[in-house]
This record gives sequence, C-alpha cells and structure tokens, in this order.
Amino acid sequence: TGVATMKFKSPPVNSLSLDFLTEFCISLEKLENNRACRGVIFTSAVPRIFSSGLDITEMCGKSTEHYAEFWRAVQEMWLRLYGSNMVTVAAVNGSSPAGGCLMALSCDYRIMVENPKFSIGLNEAQLGIVAPFWFKDTFVNVVGHRVAERSLQLGSLHPAPEAHKFGLVDELVPEEKLQEKAAAVMAQWLALPDHARQLTKNMMRKMVLDRLVAHREEDIQNFVTFISKESIQKSLRMYMEMLKKKK
Amino acid sequence: TGVATMKFKSPPVNSLSLDFLTEFCISLEKLENNRACRGVIFTSAVPRIFSSGLDITEMCGKSTEHYAEFWRAVQEMWLRLYGSNMVTVAAVNGSSPAGGCLMALSCDYRIMVENPKFSIGLNEAQLGIVAPFWFKDTFVNVVGHRVAERSLQLGSLHPAPEAHKFGLVDELVPEEKLQEKAAAVMAQWLALPDHARQLTKNMMRKMVLDRLVAHREEDIQNFVTFISKESIQKSLRMYMEMLKKKK
Amino acid sequence: TGVATMKFKSPPVNSLSLDFLTEFCISLEKLENNRACRGVIFTSAVPRIFSSGLDITEMCGKSTEHYAEFWRAVQEMWLRLYGSNMVTVAAVNGSSPAGGCLMALSCDYRIMVENPKFSIGLNEAQLGIVAPFWFKDTFVNVVGHRVAERSLQLGSLHPAPEAHKFGLVDELVPEEKLQEKAAAVMAQWLALPDHARQLTKNMMRKMVLDRLVAHREEDIQNFVTFISKESIQKSLRMYMEMLKKKK
Repeated sequence: TGVATMKFKSPPVNSLSLDFLTEFCISLEKLENNRACRGVIFTSAVPRIFSSGLDITEMCGKSTEHYAEFWRAVQEMWLRLYGSNMVTVAAVNGSSPAGGCLMALSCDYRIMVENPKFSIGLNEAQLGIVAPFWFKDTFVNVVGHRVAERSLQLGSLHPAPEAHKFGLVDELVPEEKLQEKAAAVMAQWLALPDHARQLTKNMMRKMVLDRLVAHREEDIQNFVTFISKESIQKSLRMYMEMLKKKK
Repeated sequence: TGVATMKFKSPPVNSLSLDFLTEFCISLEKLENNRACRGVIFTSAVPRIFSSGLDITEMCGKSTEHYAEFWRAVQEMWLRLYGSNMVTVAAVNGSSPAGGCLMALSCDYRIMVENPKFSIGLNEAQLGIVAPFWFKDTFVNVVGHRVAERSLQLGSLHPAPEAHKFGLVDELVPEEKLQEKAAAVMAQWLALPDHARQLTKNMMRKMVLDRLVAHREEDIQNFVTFISKESIQKSLRMYMEMLKKKK
Repeated sequence: TGVATMKFKSPPVNSLSLDFLTEFCISLEKLENNRACRGVIFTSAVPRIFSSGLDITEMCGKSTEHYAEFWRAVQEMWLRLYGSNMVTVAAVNGSSPAGGCLMALSCDYRIMVENPKFSIGLNEAQLGIVAPFWFKDTFVNVVGHRVAERSLQLGSLHPAPEAHKFGLVDELVPEEKLQEKAAAVMAQWLALPDHARQLTKNMMRKMVLDRLVAHREEDIQNFVTFISKESIQKSLRMYMEMLKKKK
C-alpha cells in the first residue's frame, strides 16, 4: 500500500536517547529513499506513552562533546521529519510531552486517543529549560502565536480533549479505532499526486526549516552552554530524582 | 452611493482566461481612479459558480511566451485586487475553486451563499499543480498556517458551511439575501474615513504584496518551466478530458 | 507574594498623557529592578474604564517637539511592558479603547469583566488615524491576521463577550471576582521557574520588539508628520468637541 508504520519501542517511556534518535533517522532515511514508500504512520508500542521526549540522562553529567553530539541528533531528527517528502501521520496513543510533542507537531496530521489521562505539550519550562526556537516555530505554525506563547511559558501539558480544542491535535478517537483511523487519513492524503503535494509541503515549511539550517552550529553552541550550567544541571538532577521516586 | 458591483459573466464557468483577466484589471483600475467609487462588490452573473479559477486552456498546448503573458496577467489581477484602496467584498454565489478562491481571499470580506453544494478552496494539488507562494501567503493570512498547510496539500474544496467554520468565508447567507447583505457590509466599511482605512489595509498587506513584486519575473519563469513539463501538460490534458466527459 | 498591583488612577478616563506614561514607565522600571517582585497586575481605580488610550490633548495644537516627546513616551511604555521580564496580567475592569487596548494586549494574560457594556479594541481608524505597525504586530500576535485586519480597518470596539470569543481577552469574569481571578492566574504563572519563563517570553516577543527598536526614530518622524497635518488636526478637534458634548 506504500504505507509504513514506525512503532516506537524503547521501554519504559520511549525517551529520545542518542541511540533512539540515530535509529529513527536511519529508518526514516531508508523509507524516504524507498520509492515504494509514500507515507509513514508513527505510533508507540509502549502502553500509555507516545514518547516522553528527550532523554534527560543524555543531558546530565556528561561531557560538552556529548551534549553537542546529542543536540545535533535532535536537530537531525526534526529536520528529517518536518522536512519529509512522505505523508507523515502521528497516531498518538499515549502521553507526549516535550520532544515527544515535537515529533507529533512535525507530522502532517495528528490523531490522538481521546483519553483525558493522555496529555501533550511542550513542557520544557516546567523543568527550568527553554524550548529552542525551532520547537517554537513548529508550535506556532500549528497553534498560532497567542496559544503558543502561553502554553510555552506555562510549560503546559494539555489533556487530549483540550489539545484538540485548540488544534494541537487534529482529531480524537477511541483507542481501538486509532490505527484504522490513521490508515484512513493516510489513504486520503495519498490520493493526491505526490509531486504537487511534496512541493506544497515544502513551500509551507521551508522558511522554518531553513532558519535552523542557517543557525545550526550556533543552536548547538547555545544548547551546550545552557545545559552545562550548574544551575541547570542541578534542576535536571532534581527532576530525575523526582521521576525515580514516582516509580 | 460610491459602491460599484462587478458581475462576472463569462459562461459557462467564469474561468480566468487572459481576456477575462485583462478586462478585470482594466475595470478595476477605472474604478480605482474614480474618486466617486469607494467600494466594489464582486459577484457572479453565472448560476452556481463564482469563478472556476484559471482557464486551463491558457496553460495547455501553448507557447512559453503565452504562458508567461498569461501568468503576468494572473499576478496583475492579484496585485491590483489584494492591494486595492477600495473596500472589496466578495459575494460568493456559487463554487469558487483555485483562482476563484484566490479572488475571494483577496477581498476585505467574504460572504457566501449557505448552500453546501457550493464549495471553495485552493485545490491546485488535485490537478497535480502547486499554488504559487503568493496564493499561499494570501491563504495563510486568512485561515492561519495549520489549516492552510492541510488544505493546500489535500487540494481541498470546502463546502460553504465548512469554509465558514474555519474562517475561509466570513459569513453565510441564504442566496436571496446575498446582495442585500453585501450592501450592508459595504455600508459598514464605508462608514470609516477612507484615508485611515486605506493606510491600515496597506500596512496589513504590504509585506505579502511586496514579496511578489520583488520576485515577479522569477515567479513567471518558475510557472513557465513548471507548466511546460510534459508530465504536467499530460495531467492537465487528462483533467480537461475529464471535465468534458462530465458535461 | 512577589506580586505588585498597579492601579491606574487618572480621572476621568485614565487617558495616557505624557505625565501618565512617564510615571508608568518609572513605576514599571522600579518593579522590574526589584528582585522581590515577579509579577504585576494592571487594573483601574476609575469606574467603568480601564484606560481610554492616548490623551488626544497631547496630539492636538502642540509643537512638533511635543508630539515627538509624547510619541517617544508611548513607544517607551510599550517596549517596557511588552518586553517585561515579569509576569503581566491585565485585569480589565472597564472599557479599553486604542492605547488602553494596546496595554492589555501587551500583557501575558487578559481577564475582563463580563459586562457587555465594556468594550475593547484598536479603534484608531474611527478617529481617522492609523494604528502604528507595532500596535498592529502586537494585535496580530494575539488574534491572528484575518481578525486583526478586519478589526483594525473597521476600528472596532468589541464588547467583552465578543472580544473573548476571538481571543482578544483570555477570560471573562463577574466584576466582583476579577481581582481574585487575576491573583489565581498570577499564582499559576509564578509557579514556573522565572528564568526559563523569561527566556521563553523573550523568544516569543523579540522579533516584534526589535522591529520597533530598529525603526524607532523613523516611527516618531512618521507620527509627527502625520499628526501635524491640518486635516488630522481638524478631525481630532472635532472628536474632542464630540467628547465634550457627550458629557
């Protein structure tokens, strides 16, 4: 059918480690270069979580070289996903904070399970860190400036129904209907001729993609400087402690 | 009353041929230069269709010189309409795909007959072609980035009630109330002092207008190269065959 | 609690005179430099009016030097308020036209008394004048391009319920609940770590702030030239006469 499904399976919470991101990019590139593949559905094989976002252990107590390598991999993931020529559908079957939300935002269409216990959002501010400008650009493109401004400053995690209300996700479905719905949406998008659709998508996203490409090294440097600060390291350690206790 | 009504009457479907566009620009310029005229209502004299958009026969089997001349006329129509100093109201009394939708989008206010059989949208992708960047800019200004991105990629034609829901048209009315409503809206806009209103309109639209002015020749060249491709010519011929059979 | 409340008390209508603006900027700067202060709530001590906007007497029958000084003070107010590092909440307990609306738009969050007799909007066009580009930028950031374009051209004053419907204000409450609600919202925003929140806010607003900074002298010059025109002076005098008669 020309449609691939990529299932995230990195228990316990599909966090975006350097390994995960590297594998993701390789898989996506393979599909991108496979002319038989025209669309990808992203979903999770882990219950109740789509992806928990960037792996905090990669950002804590490591060398500056490691931080730089990690951040380059995060950028690479976004550049490939937001700029993909394929139709990309996020079938969000669990919570999706921070980097997990970014992955969903970077797809062409977002379907989420209607469970209000599942939430989605760019909650970086809650951890004392700042979503980079290209997270922000992607978010603004989806929800507009006012909503993005408030949500980013509050580091809000929006329950699925609320996220749907302001367009952060396009559609809500019962969990058992999710894959069926994702396939139906994909079929609708694939009914269009690839070439015109790809050029159109590129026209819509090029400005925001180019902005990161133009400032990529600077963005890495900013991240490394910021994350290396003792105050930031401390708040990340506290956050990890809190997560451990939660278990 | 200072209000002109321009009725499109080019049966069977008010397609935007080179002749239509040329006449449109001349008429608009005359009104623009007539100090007694402060507003224009655009509507159709052809039943069930506002305008079917760019005339495909102008883009099929012609010389590159012809394509260039045609495209310059399309640009000229938009530059004059989107940049008009007059109050412009679209009274959309029928379907309005592609270039027809662009004309409506370029007005200050859009009123559409509430008939769900009438649809509106930039459906270029359905024909295997791509809406140019200034169609896109105009669309994004009206409906925002997310809606524009999806609608353009899917080449969606939205039934009037759906178009109203996300702001592609500002108001729906029964067919028999359309002209009355358009006149009432026009009166509301003309209650404002012209000079301040014009400067305000110009401030809102200048950036997008300037972008085409700055890239006008390049945009013509892009169009000519794209439309001259054998693959595009073939899909346009197929589309025309389909239209003929429909009749 | 780290929260200041700034009550506008310049009867009869809290108009933004040069004195008011100067005092506002000094007060805001003091709070900004006070590390104990993390948020400010803006509200009015005058019944039924939040602020009536720019003081017309400062723009009428004065010297060009005075116009320039006044306009610089208006710019300064906006640069400090829109760029504030503190959490800013507008508790809008009355009508808020023109510059009063700008003050509300420049806060992080707007709560308005649900009384439909209170209205808010950038109604400059009604007076025959034009909201400057940075009023427009701030407005577009809050309500999006289409709504801003129409509202600015019509110089609309939106009753509170209508303003709420399209996001010009974030929340409506009964008058007696306003301060309580403002305090609750403030507490929610202050729950976030300041540093990350401030960097995020700055990232969202920087582009629009920088645009004025880059064109500040030019903007003053434009204002002085425009406001000094005899036609504009005449329409302002007529407006003031009308206001006097209303009393």
